[in-house]
Amino acid sequence: MASNSFGRHFRLTTFGESHGPAIGCILDGCPAGFSIDLEAIQQALDRRKPGQSAITSRRKESDRVEVLSGLLDGTTTGTPIALMIRNIDARSADYSHIADVYRPSHADFTWDSKFGIRDHRGGGRSSARETAMWVAAGAIGRQILSSQGVRITAYVNRVGTCTIPEGQEVTLDSGLIDSNPVRCPDAEIAGEMEALIRQVRKEGDTVGGEVTCVISGCPAGWGAPVFQKLHADLGHAMLSINACKGFEYGSGFSGARMRGSQHNDVFIKEGEEIRTRTNYSGGIQGGITNGMDIVCRVAFKPVATLIQDQQTVNEEGKELTMSGKGRHDPCVVPRAVPIVEAMAALVLTDHYLLQRLARVG
Amino acid sequence: MASNSFGRHFRLTTFGESHGPAIGCILDGCPAGFSIDLEAIQQALDRRKPGQSAITSRRKESDRVEVLSGLLDGTTTGTPIALMIRNIDARSADYSHIADVYRPSHADFTWDSKFGIRDHRGGGRSSARETAMWVAAGAIGRQILSSQGVRITAYVNRVGTCTIPEGQEVTLDSGLIDSNPVRCPDAEIAGEMEALIRQVRKEGDTVGGEVTCVISGCPAGWGAPVFQKLHADLGHAMLSINACKGFEYGSGFSGARMRGSQHNDVFIKEGEEIRTRTNYSGGIQGGITNGMDIVCRVAFKPVATLIQDQQTVNEEGKELTMSGKGRHDPCVVPRAVPIVEAMAALVLTDHYLLQRLARVG
Amino acid sequence: MASNSFGRHFRLTTFGESHGPAIGCILDGCPAGFSIDLEAIQQALDRRKPGQSAITSRRKESDRVEVLSGLLDGTTTGTPIALMIRNIDARSADYSHIADVYRPSHADFTWDSKFGIRDHRGGGRSSARETAMWVAAGAIGRQILSSQGVRITAYVNRVGTCTIPEGQEVTLDSGLIDSNPVRCPDAEIAGEMEALIRQVRKEGDTVGGEVTCVISGCPAGWGAPVFQKLHADLGHAMLSINACKGFEYGSGFSGARMRGSQHNDVFIKEGEEIRTRTNYSGGIQGGITNGMDIVCRVAFKPVATLIQDQQTVNEEGKELTMSGKGRHDPCVVPRAVPIVEAMAALVLTDHYLLQRLARVG
Amino acid sequence: MASNSFGRHFRLTTFGESHGPAIGCILDGCPAGFSIDLEAIQQALDRRKPGQSAITSRRKESDRVEVLSGLLDGTTTGTPIALMIRNIDARSADYSHIADVYRPSHADFTWDSKFGIRDHRGGGRSSARETAMWVAAGAIGRQILSSQGVRITAYVNRVGTCTIPEGQEVTLDSGLIDSNPVRCPDAEIAGEMEALIRQVRKEGDTVGGEVTCVISGCPAGWGAPVFQKLHADLGHAMLSINACKGFEYGSGFSGARMRGSQHNDVFIKEGEEIRTRTNYSGGIQGGITNGMDIVCRVAFKPVATLIQDQQTVNEEGKELTMSGKGRHDPCVVPRAVPIVEAMAALVLTDHYLLQRLARVG
Repeated sequence: MASNSFGRHFRLTTFGESHGPAIGCILDGCPAGFSIDLEAIQQALDRRKPGQSAITSRRKESDRVEVLSGLLDGTTTGTPIALMIRNIDARSADYSHIADVYRPSHADFTWDSKFGIRDHRGGGRSSARETAMWVAAGAIGRQILSSQGVRITAYVNRVGTCTIPEGQEVTLDSGLIDSNPVRCPDAEIAGEMEALIRQVRKEGDTVGGEVTCVISGCPAGWGAPVFQKLHADLGHAMLSINACKGFEYGSGFSGARMRGSQHNDVFIKEGEEIRTRTNYSGGIQGGITNGMDIVCRVAFKPVATLIQDQQTVNEEGKELTMSGKGRHDPCVVPRAVPIVEAMAALVLTDHYLLQRLARVG
Repeated sequence: MASNSFGRHFRLTTFGESHGPAIGCILDGCPAGFSIDLEAIQQALDRRKPGQSAITSRRKESDRVEVLSGLLDGTTTGTPIALMIRNIDARSADYSHIADVYRPSHADFTWDSKFGIRDHRGGGRSSARETAMWVAAGAIGRQILSSQGVRITAYVNRVGTCTIPEGQEVTLDSGLIDSNPVRCPDAEIAGEMEALIRQVRKEGDTVGGEVTCVISGCPAGWGAPVFQKLHADLGHAMLSINACKGFEYGSGFSGARMRGSQHNDVFIKEGEEIRTRTNYSGGIQGGITNGMDIVCRVAFKPVATLIQDQQTVNEEGKELTMSGKGRHDPCVVPRAVPIVEAMAALVLTDHYLLQRLARVG
Repeated sequence: MASNSFGRHFRLTTFGESHGPAIGCILDGCPAGFSIDLEAIQQALDRRKPGQSAITSRRKESDRVEVLSGLLDGTTTGTPIALMIRNIDARSADYSHIADVYRPSHADFTWDSKFGIRDHRGGGRSSARETAMWVAAGAIGRQILSSQGVRITAYVNRVGTCTIPEGQEVTLDSGLIDSNPVRCPDAEIAGEMEALIRQVRKEGDTVGGEVTCVISGCPAGWGAPVFQKLHADLGHAMLSINACKGFEYGSGFSGARMRGSQHNDVFIKEGEEIRTRTNYSGGIQGGITNGMDIVCRVAFKPVATLIQDQQTVNEEGKELTMSGKGRHDPCVVPRAVPIVEAMAALVLTDHYLLQRLARVG
Repeated sequence: MASNSFGRHFRLTTFGESHGPAIGCILDGCPAGFSIDLEAIQQALDRRKPGQSAITSRRKESDRVEVLSGLLDGTTTGTPIALMIRNIDARSADYSHIADVYRPSHADFTWDSKFGIRDHRGGGRSSARETAMWVAAGAIGRQILSSQGVRITAYVNRVGTCTIPEGQEVTLDSGLIDSNPVRCPDAEIAGEMEALIRQVRKEGDTVGGEVTCVISGCPAGWGAPVFQKLHADLGHAMLSINACKGFEYGSGFSGARMRGSQHNDVFIKEGEEIRTRTNYSGGIQGGITNGMDIVCRVAFKPVATLIQDQQTVNEEGKELTMSGKGRHDPCVVPRAVPIVEAMAALVLTDHYLLQRLARVG
């Protein structure tokens, strides 16, 4: 099945259950001779990990990553890079009361339907804990991309009904974005979002949201025209993130309401470069970058774990009431920001390598 | 690069330029012993082809598909199925005036940036003509799925600002859908959509829209939990279609505005089966089907080819005015319906095979 | 299953049965901007085709290849190259007497065991006719390699017990090799081989043989150290050829009889280059080229089709005597020479692209 | 590049350098619901590890494997199985004298040519230490195959010039094979082989050899007819093993000297089964199993590390004399036996899964 691998040339393969001994990954295809900043990997993991603020899950994982192979004195050697994080704060007993229960909108029932067996402790491999390795691997991709002038910045543009208005200019400053626990670059709206999340937490409820991702500095010519369209790969990447329900790029769903005369991005000459006046294309035309900012948006549903009683069935199909317990995130989108950035980095690094094969000579 | 292949076990590889001698495909991994209805393939192609009504492109292609291999007396033998359609009505001269021009929001500039050479005639391989082979291959997938009780139905739910209201019940009747040129199951709204398209065509303009796809009868347990999530594969498939700007499933982007207590799909017992009361999950939980209808929506931008003058640059970066000529679709979404269905069929057939490997014995 | 594709970056996918309407292929991943010599493709096909001399099958195929896509004025555009050959001289009736018979050492029984259905006409897709497309695609690879200074030359070193003595110097001159129907560069031994094949044909029998392949001019650094070792890929390629029973490179099986002190290739300095004094490594060390000639050898069994009566069983398991009829090659190895070269070209072109991804910058 | 993965459906990805912190692997695609015997994995590793007898390397590794994921109470869950072994006895200082030297017939020079950087300590990732993870993963494959009645047995048939005579009947008894340090089932010949290896060790030299592998109980119908021929996959697998120089199956290279009338395996009826009277096909016809024993042979060159002075060059291309030091195996073939078995198990398990997709229904 090989369904635990992502990417073609820059290829991530992951392992690990939420409550198993460890999670980890092998990142194959990283070019040799690149000096890796290990501290930057750890920082990316720290941005993702739970327990960072009052509005995230209280699970405490130090998430210290160990490099098991692939580097010689901090430089890549062309061999696979293996990373591992030992699980520490895995309170499996917290899950014993739901061992045979199919939690609503979780993967318990579907996992059983497919495999006939499942590791119920902490959601097993369906847990968002899996994304820690995506973030670690993505941090390596980001460094390679950064050496090519490519920068990736994501931020929360919506929590529930609270949103940055469509068309409002956004400052892509990571300092600004990380200055509040919601990771929204507009301080005022961030405050409203945080208040909403606190309210939702108090009710034992959860709320959805959206993350916007902008990739700047990418040269024209990355991507592919048919089945490896850059935006299709980005969509696949983002839709792989837990709780993701939708993906759009450029004009996205609002493009469906537009006329061609309004939507077409007119080419202009800016100095020596060909640019477009508008960017409804979202930096990608026919699956290939045109040198403008790549802009995409990712929708997340509200987390399924509630601190409320819920109706459901168990493995025998018996209907029952499940009480809400355990640690949970009232809103996943602030923690999704580094994950979205990491997935974008994995896709872009893959296409950075791919474009080396496009021409002779 | 191998970027012209789609799918893992049920694997489509395509070839052909819009104005080359032929387009075609190899469909590998089709199980042996299945009796193919060739007429159904042709019918699917006929639904996609241009020139069907006053609101589509006037290019006339008979699109007669030829089977070159893979069948013995109409039955699959386990060998690759090769299909080919000769191009007939390719008026390459129509494109000579834009040989060195980068058309706005087309793939001309990006293609040149990547490959340094491009076939400008009819968009070369960036043309939507490519999708004819997807429809042909998808028609084979559909027959296999149909033998498993899986049905795929798509329809237009939006043309520009004209839309089926959110929450309105829709009758999934393909006869109803095909009873009007817009392929919208609500006759009244279809009429409005058609009027809008006629208006847009008169203005030499184009308009975007949306297609909804519903997959019924799929058993629980298809899909995969990490990087081959069924909805991520569906997203990748749909975002591969020309002009696609966004994808969502289940609650989609509206899910980002909801609370968990509202969004969670409560499990219930219906006879011997476990079902959910609501279907915000869109039939997929944790990347795996739960037996409910799979529901997704695909957004398309307005077609970039206008019958209007447009500002742009040529290969030398010189700014110029390009006059609108040639045959074009004022609105692509009615013709996108069979393409969306075909891509859904390819993804589902792949996962139908994949799930055979999930368990021992 | 996708089992009809070969290669990773330079990827060949084939279709077609021996007695179907056509055979063909899609070659994906060919870099853009390369000017293809189409005549050279045809010449390669002509070297492989039957009916060239008194010692090959009398099936007459003009084997005119048609290019269906991928080229613009003879130059690659980065799109998949599709090639097709219509089958002409397919006398399917010749095979009606064996429709339900399992021919000894053919793939009839095993094919039925796997697929439950088979195209008995001419061996269906198990026919060596399939290799025509490998030769066509390989001819494109050879041209790319040639532009990098890499030359591929194969010749027959053994027919049955008649062989070029181990250690005898061989002149790698393709003119010399093609000057006789056996494709052995030593004229005297070629004469003996030809006499042996004529004798075998007269007896309605067949005979095996070996082909040696030498790849010169390949720079150091192509290949990979673990699961994509260049020699493992070459082995996989050669063992894919019909009737192949063995593969060795460098010292090969004779290396198993040697001491390390004798087998080690001492490094020396030759001008500015690092070379080895001997070449027991066969140009590959640890799966990666060292700049010396790549040398490998391929063993072929005698063709299974005899013009003799043979005992066998039919599909019902009934034992019977099958009479020998039809057209056949008494010795396949002369025709295997261009196939071996083509497979070497496909593998080397793949690794030529692969090595572009090895380092940063 | 993804060059550290092996297999399609049952897919192994490995990491780790000989002298890094650990070696490990992820085995993806293992079906759920299979109960794994962990002790059998450790036993397989113990058969491979160095320091088992006077005729192997004195490096001492306990090689205790740790399972990091994929099992719940010893049963596979369908998630990737991750295994890890910490490196203990890695005397990196032993290699400091050769840090900038290109050892003859090692991968030092070629690795530098490809990657521009290499981990010289213990051969880095070119070390045969890598094969420990192949053995661990292969042990899982063997258990799955065993549940299907498939048994894999390998033994040493040659050490240098000392060999089991061609045609001599061999008893496939693993107890017999493991009763001597050479792993040759004929006690008398084993004694001669051992004496030869002791003599070679005394001289600071090394010697090559061959391993024969027999796979019994495999049903007809596994494999594929074109590019995934079972024997081509086996060849690729065996040629991936360090020091391997050749692969043959069935009649192999001796088949090249035979006539078709002698080589053809006549089909007969044995009870209800179709069998062949002889087995020159080696259990595979047209790439697919025929139910007879699969028989192949693998040739290994003498190990390149000698305890003798050798001429060579360093990274600057300066010629110098390298003195022989360190721990080494005078003959690798006895330790290759479990590796050959493991690689056969990986290939066969892959095809066991593959054949599930061959037919409808």
